[in-house]
Amino acid sequence: MKLFFSPTSPYVRKVMICAHELGLSEHIELLPAKASPVDRDKTIVEKNPLGKVPTLLTKEGVALYDSRVICEYLNELGSGQLFPTDKSLRWEAITMQALGDGLLDAALLTRYETFLRPKELCWNDWVNGQIEKIHSALKQFESSVHNDSFHIGQITLACSLAYLDLRFDHLEWRKSHPKLKGWFEVISKRTSVAKEWTLPA
Amino acid sequence: MKLFFSPTSPYVRKVMICAHELGLSEHIELLPAKASPVDRDKTIVEKNPLGKVPTLLTKEGVALYDSRVICEYLNELGSGQLFPTDKSLRWEAITMQALGDGLLDAALLTRYETFLRPKELCWNDWVNGQIEKIHSALKQFESSVHNDSFHIGQITLACSLAYLDLRFDHLEWRKSHPKLKGWFEVISKRTSVAKEWTLPA
Repeated sequence: MKLFFSPTSPYVRKVMICAHELGLSEHIELLPAKASPVDRDKTIVEKNPLGKVPTLLTKEGVALYDSRVICEYLNELGSGQLFPTDKSLRWEAITMQALGDGLLDAALLTRYETFLRPKELCWNDWVNGQIEKIHSALKQFESSVHNDSFHIGQITLACSLAYLDLRFDHLEWRKSHPKLKGWFEVISKRTSVAKEWTLPA
Repeated sequence: MKLFFSPTSPYVRKVMICAHELGLSEHIELLPAKASPVDRDKTIVEKNPLGKVPTLLTKEGVALYDSRVICEYLNELGSGQLFPTDKSLRWEAITMQALGDGLLDAALLTRYETFLRPKELCWNDWVNGQIEKIHSALKQFESSVHNDSFHIGQITLACSLAYLDLRFDHLEWRKSHPKLKGWFEVISKRTSVAKEWTLPA
């Protein structure tokens, strides 16, 4: 399999953690990608019209995207339980994934607004709305996170918190979320979460 | 069940089409919602920190989101095949859903940029990047759409094209996509797709 890859994309990281958990990461060749919403990467667009990472090319040459689809595909390939078969746990896990993805979407939109868009075109109301989303999502995670099982919801949460550390250090999310802080400390020691992936030299 | 609803949201429409196909639409009470990224609806936020429609409240009172999660939940509840159990068809269907959702995300971001944001803060490169995404997605759909089965991928495509008709009439997508035009004509006659949902008076 081949994966269009970016080392800082939290959605790519979701895929790589799943792959590692499932013993599949050695079977994925990482391909360089320069995904940007205003300067699209034509090599990706050929396979995925949205021009986004992650995009997976299966052994059969089929293009799969986005991260939710790829993670579920890998889970199937590795006969995993990252997408639980128990139904009530499944809805919990994939709603948690949706919440983490939503937090990340808000963080990415904020990043585009403040780092990609020309300064004079920045709209504060937009940024404030997105940041509010991040805070509401963190509050919900703080009240619901637990260590009972490791599934796609928790993987997405780990990638969300790591992304906040990377790009939104100034939010200091640990200060007002002690349970999340403790949870993240534990989960960060897990090999799949601790590991850093890079493109082959 | 209860659903935070907006009559023009294409993601809500995905859910309602699924519900109708599965014989469940009569069991869903529609709740009014005013989701906006800059002026968040606090009633939704209480249940879904992202403050977005669709958000479903199950009979047990659990909040499920986003549209992908709700559609899969309804499919399970109605023992449907909108999310195919045949694996290779499943990856095709949910990647097609991701492509349609991606087209819609690009359309919504364009709409926010041109109708919500103050005119003087509009960034043309951003709009162009999003519109390019819509065109690439349409091109891919044009070359791959077929009538073999009706699943979540096709439902998402139908909602995407209907949304382009509602808000992006000027793109005149039918002109350069004859196969999609023909496919949409047929699919639009399906009761679940033709139906218009509104809030109870």
